[in-house]
Amino acid sequence: MARKISDSTVRRLSRYLRRLRTLDRQELKVVSSRELAESTGTTAAQVRKDLSHFGSFGKRGQGYAVSDLRVHLEEILGLTRRWRVAVLGVGKIGSALLGYGFFTQRGFDVVAAFDSDRSKIGRELAGVSVQALSELEQTFVDREISIAIIATPVEAAQKAANRAVRAGAQAILNFAPIKLRLPPEVAVREMDVTLELEGLCYLVTEAGAAAEETE
Amino acid sequence: MARKISDSTVRRLSRYLRRLRTLDRQELKVVSSRELAESTGTTAAQVRKDLSHFGSFGKRGQGYAVSDLRVHLEEILGLTRRWRVAVLGVGKIGSALLGYGFFTQRGFDVVAAFDSDRSKIGRELAGVSVQALSELEQTFVDREISIAIIATPVEAAQKAANRAVRAGAQAILNFAPIKLRLPPEVAVREMDVTLELEGLCYLVTEAGAAAEETE
Repeated sequence: MARKISDSTVRRLSRYLRRLRTLDRQELKVVSSRELAESTGTTAAQVRKDLSHFGSFGKRGQGYAVSDLRVHLEEILGLTRRWRVAVLGVGKIGSALLGYGFFTQRGFDVVAAFDSDRSKIGRELAGVSVQALSELEQTFVDREISIAIIATPVEAAQKAANRAVRAGAQAILNFAPIKLRLPPEVAVREMDVTLELEGLCYLVTEAGAAAEETE
Repeated sequence: MARKISDSTVRRLSRYLRRLRTLDRQELKVVSSRELAESTGTTAAQVRKDLSHFGSFGKRGQGYAVSDLRVHLEEILGLTRRWRVAVLGVGKIGSALLGYGFFTQRGFDVVAAFDSDRSKIGRELAGVSVQALSELEQTFVDREISIAIIATPVEAAQKAANRAVRAGAQAILNFAPIKLRLPPEVAVREMDVTLELEGLCYLVTEAGAAAEETE
């Protein structure tokens, strides 16, 4: 049964899973909601609530079976399989992502990279050969790519995303500082550094104003 | 008056501001909530609701005065001043961030970079000289740095963040795939690529399951 859960719940589930994978590697058998909460920056009540969405995993007062819960979360998150990823735009951010070893470890295989800059095409970066955008459609089909990471300059981002979607991408991770317009069936997450920095500025400014008020 | 608004509202305000800055540069005087909504991927009702938190900016039926609203949003977000940023860890992601021209344009000056790797110390990257971690405290004070970007390997992230906070950082942007534990007065935002990719996998998997159910 598929049910809608919020992005923030999904992020917490990912964090629980990370912790469970570590505990499982260490061959620990049982974990309490408190331990899981502490290592992921939330509360035990939140852990129990999040996990209760998906049925009852733990036994009251006995904690969760580490290995079982890990498998369940992998199933819920769709992480029992590997995912094929393409990077569109191999500037600074794109190149950094291509070399990011953590992806492979977590089930993501970056199998293609594209750029419009002729001087980059044909170059090999972290084992992936940079291709011309004209080869995008065929490559997405041939290599069964389902996720596109957009790391182009802002002006090129929407076109690149459209192209990836037409080629079959089901999900887009967008590093360009622009809100993409995409069909509703395409999953999108934004990685917008400046937006997050501006959010921090708001919080710092607000805290400063609050401190002044109480003086 | 400082009032708590949610992270997602703050993100939308940032997007409105981006759009307003562009319109202002184009010397457009007035913008409707609909136009603002369309260019930022939300609804006109949401725009009106978000802006109503901060007093009444628009005249009914006449839209918002572009320049006034831009200035107001800059004040709300704390973006009437420039912010000094340090990058901790100059691996692939850290180096990419150092060269990211969009920061300067948006009011962020990356004025320092640190690494524990001796072979990197003293190197100049995008006009910033990489320093040893031992110089962190003095540099934060001397250069009045308020934001630290954590781009270290995961094992080093918590220590680096602690150090930045002790040196006076008021805000942390964290690229390491770990939930940092920091004092409540420090503002934190996470830029966790793998977490976002896993969120996309959940959405794609869920959509697939929903499609099967309706077949």
